[in-house]
Amino acid sequence: MAVEIERKYRVIKSRWQPNDTGVDYRQGYLCSGDGRTVRVRIAGAQAFITVKGPTRGYARAEYEYPVPVSDAEEMLTELCPKPLIEKIRYRVEYAGHIWEVDVFNGDNRGLVLAEIELPAEDTRFEVPDWVGEEVSGDPRYFNSSLAVTPQPDPN
Amino acid sequence: MAVEIERKYRVIKSRWQPNDTGVDYRQGYLCSGDGRTVRVRIAGAQAFITVKGPTRGYARAEYEYPVPVSDAEEMLTELCPKPLIEKIRYRVEYAGHIWEVDVFNGDNRGLVLAEIELPAEDTRFEVPDWVGEEVSGDPRYFNSSLAVTPQPDPN
Repeated sequence: MAVEIERKYRVIKSRWQPNDTGVDYRQGYLCSGDGRTVRVRIAGAQAFITVKGPTRGYARAEYEYPVPVSDAEEMLTELCPKPLIEKIRYRVEYAGHIWEVDVFNGDNRGLVLAEIELPAEDTRFEVPDWVGEEVSGDPRYFNSSLAVTPQPDPN
Repeated sequence: MAVEIERKYRVIKSRWQPNDTGVDYRQGYLCSGDGRTVRVRIAGAQAFITVKGPTRGYARAEYEYPVPVSDAEEMLTELCPKPLIEKIRYRVEYAGHIWEVDVFNGDNRGLVLAEIELPAEDTRFEVPDWVGEEVSGDPRYFNSSLAVTPQPDPN
């Protein structure tokens, strides 16, 4: 098991621009709720099935396995409820940490979120000026929730 | 994707005896219902995560991936609802086909079911005399249901 320790923020869109082409992500949920999710994700040319446990603080158990992209395509098309999550993920290095900036498309078009994955809950890190309100604990911004109740941001 | 085509029967216990030691199976469901299940299974020294789609006739889409046994142990213990399914699976060759006979333990103790996996829905096969009532379409005998509403058979 890996433990994922992650904090999540809204991005102040007027202050951030992508500096590369990013990677296309498409993902759906075979299940969510009851303290666990099973996600199918296609990330660029790779695909994964990922089981996550309940969130405790900023941490979550995570089990991720590579799967054939063709299987993932079928599971997303045939088995996952719609809408799927569609986003472009950019990796941004800032002050010695990697931020992942997700620019959503599809039903969540215009939403931009930034995540930082940390080795421990008390790891200190600097926050770039394009990072806005923290939404780590806000269930509306869980990707599994965005697949049920999208949060588009047209501004 | 594989398509699993399977028929399932109750076993007439007075007419059947195991002829080897079988393989211990322990499995649970990360989710079931809404036309799909995600199963975690430990089968002897191997472990798998398996996604199945809705049953159509005797057929079901199935995606199975090996996972580390230690991951499966954790997912069964920490994430899957209880009770788990515990059974010993025996492979029995009869008239050119393999039957899998499941002798349940735990909350389903005493239940014995036999399954035959077929290459096509119209494949012909002979039924041994220890095979009783067909339960292929009976949701009570889906393993995902046995994990929620056990069907022990003390006789």
